Amino acid sequence: MKLSILGCYSATPRTLNNTTSQVLEINKHMFLIDCGEGSQVQLRKHKIKFNRIKHIFISHLHGDHFFGLVGLISTFRLLTREADLHIYGPKGIKEVITLQMKLADSWTNYNLIFHELTSKDSELIFEDELVEVFTIPLEHRVYTNGFLFKEKPGDRKLNIDAVQEEKIDIAYYRKLKQGFDVYNTDGILIKNESVTMDGRKPKSYAFCSDTAYKESIVPIINNVSVLYHESTFLEKHSHLASKTKHSTAKEAARIAKQACVGKLILGHYSTRYNDLNFFKVEAKEVFKNVELAEDGKVFEFD
Amino acid sequence: MKLSILGCYSATPRTLNNTTSQVLEINKHMFLIDCGEGSQVQLRKHKIKFNRIKHIFISHLHGDHFFGLVGLISTFRLLTREADLHIYGPKGIKEVITLQMKLADSWTNYNLIFHELTSKDSELIFEDELVEVFTIPLEHRVYTNGFLFKEKPGDRKLNIDAVQEEKIDIAYYRKLKQGFDVYNTDGILIKNESVTMDGRKPKSYAFCSDTAYKESIVPIINNVSVLYHESTFLEKHSHLASKTKHSTAKEAARIAKQACVGKLILGHYSTRYNDLNFFKVEAKEVFKNVELAEDGKVFEFD
Repeated sequence: MKLSILGCYSATPRTLNNTTSQVLEINKHMFLIDCGEGSQVQLRKHKIKFNRIKHIFISHLHGDHFFGLVGLISTFRLLTREADLHIYGPKGIKEVITLQMKLADSWTNYNLIFHELTSKDSELIFEDELVEVFTIPLEHRVYTNGFLFKEKPGDRKLNIDAVQEEKIDIAYYRKLKQGFDVYNTDGILIKNESVTMDGRKPKSYAFCSDTAYKESIVPIINNVSVLYHESTFLEKHSHLASKTKHSTAKEAARIAKQACVGKLILGHYSTRYNDLNFFKVEAKEVFKNVELAEDGKVFEFD
Repeated sequence: MKLSILGCYSATPRTLNNTTSQVLEINKHMFLIDCGEGSQVQLRKHKIKFNRIKHIFISHLHGDHFFGLVGLISTFRLLTREADLHIYGPKGIKEVITLQMKLADSWTNYNLIFHELTSKDSELIFEDELVEVFTIPLEHRVYTNGFLFKEKPGDRKLNIDAVQEEKIDIAYYRKLKQGFDVYNTDGILIKNESVTMDGRKPKSYAFCSDTAYKESIVPIINNVSVLYHESTFLEKHSHLASKTKHSTAKEAARIAKQACVGKLILGHYSTRYNDLNFFKVEAKEVFKNVELAEDGKVFEFD
């Protein structure tokens, strides 16, 4: 699992600060999460192959999270993309993108499939044999979802010594890895757990931005490997956090602690702060394993 | 008159190439012309004060000319702008901007005034005591206008020796500068042209992008001081220019020659070319005074 931060600042793009966008590589998928203005240039800087992005998740329709989407869709078309592109985001996203395509008299030559979200409850919005993606209903000034990305359990690992001792034919190894009991060469049924071990522990990633402090997300994100939680403000500006429905670093850490997450990544900083370390210091008072998102930073979780 | 090129490439923003946007300073005005994605960051790099921009002119609704507009409008709001903002552009521009504001539940706290264009003839769209702006109907895949910016003639210059010799009271100097005949201290009417000279020659700038080769614009832009004309392709790709309704460098130069302009600036290059000098060489075969637009370049015309 690998997370590339294309941008992690709030409000407006600046000379040195990009607005929210990140790429999550998980179990062979490459998911784009949010797409502030200029994200397509950030993708180029990260040398991320455009064709590998097949699913884009948009948390909400504030500009710093989605003004780059129409440009990216348009660029995919100019580069003669053929692969389907799935967009998950709040209701209205289809209308605004298609209106812009219509005014430009320019339609995609690939399938552009919108999955508009309206539910106030967490729901499964994507699933294949490798990964599941759920929404995380957040609390912001407009309808907003975070997203929970979960690897499915991988194959079980063979205990080769035990497998050979039990005289299991090699033709059954695939079934063993899939968790089935199998017959050995003597016709005896061998219990799977007696000759296999748990495979790689499935990883999970929760993206929570933008949101006020919201304890009801804790059961949804419980035990995730990595939580990205917005921290637009420090506690000294908690009145601004309340007013604008954002969180402080301390509040993000409280959520991380209650949900027993493996690691907390902070982001979506207000540009009023010159030194991001204050966010880390504040969060660490509550929860130990804290990292700071920074534009261009890549986190490897393997 | 000063022209800052924020971006001058076609199609898509890239790591080192920005799409179309430029700022024209003319007679105390600061006009933004087109606004590709990322233009607000380019404005910051140029240290252009956002509040000085009161009029934005959008040629057409292709992304590389206007996907940065909604972000700029939104940023103006976040920076608590109060000054009116006028947007001139094709019909539809109001709908697409207001839809995005509505979805973000975010309205401007300043007056946002749209002037939607539909005419196929050149028309006066802005005028004050300093400047006039006219549309230049262009030929592209969607409804497109160029823009002609014309300084109004400034004050006449006093011939101080002649003024004193004619015994004209200092109280009449303002009227003389404005071109009026005045009475001297002996009560004799003095002809204006006998004691004044022409003031600074009014400058003019024509922005023509995007467009196929279109001779009918020549009478509109005749004798302009500076012409920016798109040259997306070189002559060797003239078949692509025809197909996509763009121009070649040679065609841009032909327009410049016929219109007897002072200087031709080329831009809107396809990113297929590594060396922009070929554009200059090709255009110079037809018209001598050619310059290349480049992202970040500033032209001073005084």
